[in-house]
Amino acid sequence: MGRIALGLSYDGRGWQGWQTQPGGRTLQDTLEAALRRFLAAPAVATICAGRTDAGVHALQQVVHLDTAAVRRDESWVRGVNALLPESVAVQWACAVPDGFHARFDARARTYFYVLRSAPVRSPVLHGRVGWVHDPLDESAMRAAAALLTGEHDFSAFRSSECQAASPVRTLQALDIHRSGDFLVFEFRANAFLHHMVRNLMGVLVMVGRGRRAPEWAAELLRDRDRKRAAPTFMPDGLYLAHADYPGAQLPQRTAREALRHHLGML
Amino acid sequence: MGRIALGLSYDGRGWQGWQTQPGGRTLQDTLEAALRRFLAAPAVATICAGRTDAGVHALQQVVHLDTAAVRRDESWVRGVNALLPESVAVQWACAVPDGFHARFDARARTYFYVLRSAPVRSPVLHGRVGWVHDPLDESAMRAAAALLTGEHDFSAFRSSECQAASPVRTLQALDIHRSGDFLVFEFRANAFLHHMVRNLMGVLVMVGRGRRAPEWAAELLRDRDRKRAAPTFMPDGLYLAHADYPGAQLPQRTAREALRHHLGML
Repeated sequence: MGRIALGLSYDGRGWQGWQTQPGGRTLQDTLEAALRRFLAAPAVATICAGRTDAGVHALQQVVHLDTAAVRRDESWVRGVNALLPESVAVQWACAVPDGFHARFDARARTYFYVLRSAPVRSPVLHGRVGWVHDPLDESAMRAAAALLTGEHDFSAFRSSECQAASPVRTLQALDIHRSGDFLVFEFRANAFLHHMVRNLMGVLVMVGRGRRAPEWAAELLRDRDRKRAAPTFMPDGLYLAHADYPGAQLPQRTAREALRHHLGML
Repeated sequence: MGRIALGLSYDGRGWQGWQTQPGGRTLQDTLEAALRRFLAAPAVATICAGRTDAGVHALQQVVHLDTAAVRRDESWVRGVNALLPESVAVQWACAVPDGFHARFDARARTYFYVLRSAPVRSPVLHGRVGWVHDPLDESAMRAAAALLTGEHDFSAFRSSECQAASPVRTLQALDIHRSGDFLVFEFRANAFLHHMVRNLMGVLVMVGRGRRAPEWAAELLRDRDRKRAAPTFMPDGLYLAHADYPGAQLPQRTAREALRHHLGML
């Protein structure tokens, strides 16, 4: 048996998220069905870097699986893609050491949230970007972002369904970029709690709209009460972009390269 | 009666193009149905700047109609959008003089073709951008573009169904921009023949892939034979972005502003 890593991109609309569900339309079930056909194997089990929710996209999800089959890297990409629907595609494949683990070895994950701020809705990127119709104060959002970075108890930003043992995470970076009339929020953390990025986005948008001062972000961290924070923001603009595996040799794109490659932004 | 102009954006996938068809799923029929409900009128007739084909998108299609109703500009936008599907949206509205004509007064139209050049397909902008898996030689494509600009007989770039009286058009500009890993082709002409942009794209891509020299573009213009040119390129990346009405006071975006506003590119 050998272990294979795949880089996967997908449009999360219409899917019930990554994780397998009985009778569900999930990305994991669809990928595993394609792999079973590609390998002519009765069962294939995959492990991913970040289990994305319904409606959340991936520029570069990292997945591993074990197989006795030997294929060239290019064959994995072409062969599996021929068996996947248009909304899912393998971007790269490579053999990895048996000890490599897509979930446990990832030391950091990067997500982008792509947000359109405009008075009128646009059909062009509908479902692939978030939207607010109010103008946003970028400097206020940057001030809030600065308060959120670092190691914190993120209980106020964690869904009630979150199963993580600890609410403490290290938000290594929360950068805000502009691309055309869009704002791109870049979140990098060692790991994320359930709904954490969407809950952070809810607060940043409230601050950007002037409903709350930037200091509210620090209060929420301190109070650790999910009910006082903003509602969970829509999944539409959320993209898993990168997982960091120190020492592993994967043909990955950096998070920003992946954004430029798939969305043409930045 | 007064005349109203609307700026319209749409995702052209799943539509049989702009123009009304009996029993067809067309953008004109859908807009006119929404306008009838908004105005509580038995019939509304619209005229557009450029009749886009099936699968072709618009950042800013210009449409005019006549009505006795008086509404604020903002009411037109909000009220009609509430009656349109997610894939179509009015961006702006304004009263125009009775002599204004969205089709006959347009002195120039601008289209963008957004093209991704990458070895592997991407699900993220599937259907909204064109795709070639070969690398493209930008300088060769620019050389071909320079030969295509100006006033020419574009018979080699005109579909057999084209009903225009003359095949002569003035291609005022054909600029190639880079945005992330995408190429954005900007076409501006007084008017376009049927399939003209997609047929020009077919030739530019053949040149970019090194299958033909840039001078082939000049030969095709000279020979005026559609059969010798490249196949019609896929509609996926084609966007109507602007129509130029000298002297008219419309709240339009420029073509490039519209691209930045809807796609975040450039």
